[in-house]
Amino acid sequence: MADNCTIAVDAMGGDEGPDVTVPASLGLLDAHPRAELILVGDEDRLRAAVESRGGDRGGRLTYRHASQVVEMDESASLAMRNKKDSSMRVAINLVKEGQAQACVSAGNTGALMATARFVLKTLPGVDRPAICTTLPTAEGHVHVLDLGANVDSRSTNLFEFAVMGSVLAGAVDRQERPSVGLLNVGEEDVKGNEVVKEAARLLGDSDLAYHGFVEGNDVFQGTTDVVVCDGFVGNVMLKSTEGVARLIAGNLRAEFRRNPLTKLVGLMARPVLNRFRSRIDPRRFNGASLVGLQGIVIKSHGNADTYAFGQALHEAILEVDKAVPDRIGQELERVLVEGRTV
Amino acid sequence: MADNCTIAVDAMGGDEGPDVTVPASLGLLDAHPRAELILVGDEDRLRAAVESRGGDRGGRLTYRHASQVVEMDESASLAMRNKKDSSMRVAINLVKEGQAQACVSAGNTGALMATARFVLKTLPGVDRPAICTTLPTAEGHVHVLDLGANVDSRSTNLFEFAVMGSVLAGAVDRQERPSVGLLNVGEEDVKGNEVVKEAARLLGDSDLAYHGFVEGNDVFQGTTDVVVCDGFVGNVMLKSTEGVARLIAGNLRAEFRRNPLTKLVGLMARPVLNRFRSRIDPRRFNGASLVGLQGIVIKSHGNADTYAFGQALHEAILEVDKAVPDRIGQELERVLVEGRTV
Repeated sequence: MADNCTIAVDAMGGDEGPDVTVPASLGLLDAHPRAELILVGDEDRLRAAVESRGGDRGGRLTYRHASQVVEMDESASLAMRNKKDSSMRVAINLVKEGQAQACVSAGNTGALMATARFVLKTLPGVDRPAICTTLPTAEGHVHVLDLGANVDSRSTNLFEFAVMGSVLAGAVDRQERPSVGLLNVGEEDVKGNEVVKEAARLLGDSDLAYHGFVEGNDVFQGTTDVVVCDGFVGNVMLKSTEGVARLIAGNLRAEFRRNPLTKLVGLMARPVLNRFRSRIDPRRFNGASLVGLQGIVIKSHGNADTYAFGQALHEAILEVDKAVPDRIGQELERVLVEGRTV
Repeated sequence: MADNCTIAVDAMGGDEGPDVTVPASLGLLDAHPRAELILVGDEDRLRAAVESRGGDRGGRLTYRHASQVVEMDESASLAMRNKKDSSMRVAINLVKEGQAQACVSAGNTGALMATARFVLKTLPGVDRPAICTTLPTAEGHVHVLDLGANVDSRSTNLFEFAVMGSVLAGAVDRQERPSVGLLNVGEEDVKGNEVVKEAARLLGDSDLAYHGFVEGNDVFQGTTDVVVCDGFVGNVMLKSTEGVARLIAGNLRAEFRRNPLTKLVGLMARPVLNRFRSRIDPRRFNGASLVGLQGIVIKSHGNADTYAFGQALHEAILEVDKAVPDRIGQELERVLVEGRTV
């Protein structure tokens, strides 16, 4: 781990607020003996929550008071205008001021992206930041972006997403040249809309490890290390696959609860079913990166529990350790200087 | 069932061709004593396949020779130009000529849509036909369109899809006013791109049972009876959810095969797991409708087995029985006359 690693935690964000963020933060400090955290929010409440759980881990946990909270359904523009002392805004400010190397929030995605973009600014050469998450595949995981920051991406945006996703995947997975797929409705060159066709041309001319078009089923098959798509498409994909996973899990549960005999079988099968459940547990993959900013911002799912929020904190530590924004900045500069983008 | 129901079957289409289409056709004739089928393709081969399986069911199964086959990866334009005697084209011609009331094909989707559109023409008022499929939900099913016929839909196209999907759902589910959701990245009015916002306005002004925006997870939750989206988005959603379902099923299988003990538990749980599997069996939902055409065309999955292809044949019978294209035509005329579209 990097010597100097302080994470600003928006301790009020998410559906559960401090009931989740505080125990997750303490867990992280126990797991990373050199990490430091700044809990941002209602200081009295946070202090009480920390004290009741055994204290501040030798001073590695400090507080920054913030008097406001961005609501989960609040519009980004209203939050930006009226909540200048929100826990979210103050946590991002700490990154801007260099007092923290990353911030983590389970707050409202739109407000988080808008505030982070306003406070931290985009990296030189980045037109639009993107949201990148990790999804499970048969053999490991895949990095997918954009997940909803941009709903009308141009081909040059998709190209930028590919560069950023490639750097992120390379850094956190320690991989030399991660393969990049462009999400489309078919693998043939003639398929798709004009935007993906033009993005394919840009990627084909670049020196990224561009695989070509991939389809929806390729994402979870792990055909490539990175999958690039417009945020509208990525958001629908993410939420619909969560929906189908929940439907399947519900059906499995219902079948084992059908009658006393199936319940008995379910009891015997419990260790197997538990291991199965932990394999597909979406909490393991919690913690999406807002890439393309001058700073590290990790978005946790709003309904994260302590384990899930802890995963988002770990992602922040990892990205600090790998200096992800610096690497993205260098790679974009290289690509731009070499005239590989339009 | 309607008195007069003859289905033209593209018996050469799909990955398995007659090995699947012939037994599925015979099964349908056994299930529907008044249905008639025309098997289109290599007549000698089809006759042999039928004879070896017990014959033509009292003359209700006839043949129409076609000398060509559209390949699964053939471009639509090449198939249209060079394969005028393909089993797919001849089957669609039979609908055009009134010798069949519907056709079913497991062939290449692009070629099927292009040929069907060219031969049958769109219904008056339809700018673009769409592909509509049924997907499972917690309590039943949902009709989703478009699944990939249109990759750059305008708001008026989405409005047409809503009208067509609503009529289809109403007809086959015998439902008075099916609720219609517009797929978006959030439920709030401010979310999404300009196309969905404008489509929402059109739908809000219509007398459809318009629910509002829905998100990816709503699809499988069954929030609405119909979900409308652009074909690029719908195609990615369909294929990615298939991918995640396969990943989950693979993980479940792997956990039960982990060691001799888990295998034994798996053996005891087999009846439960089999019922679970049949609940989520995608073959049950095989058979997508090409809506907006002057005729009924059902697209089967290319890798359908006999059971799955049989489901597509049943869908054809159902749509003939409910006169779906006539109803769509009437509803579109009503909507257009009442000036509800732009």
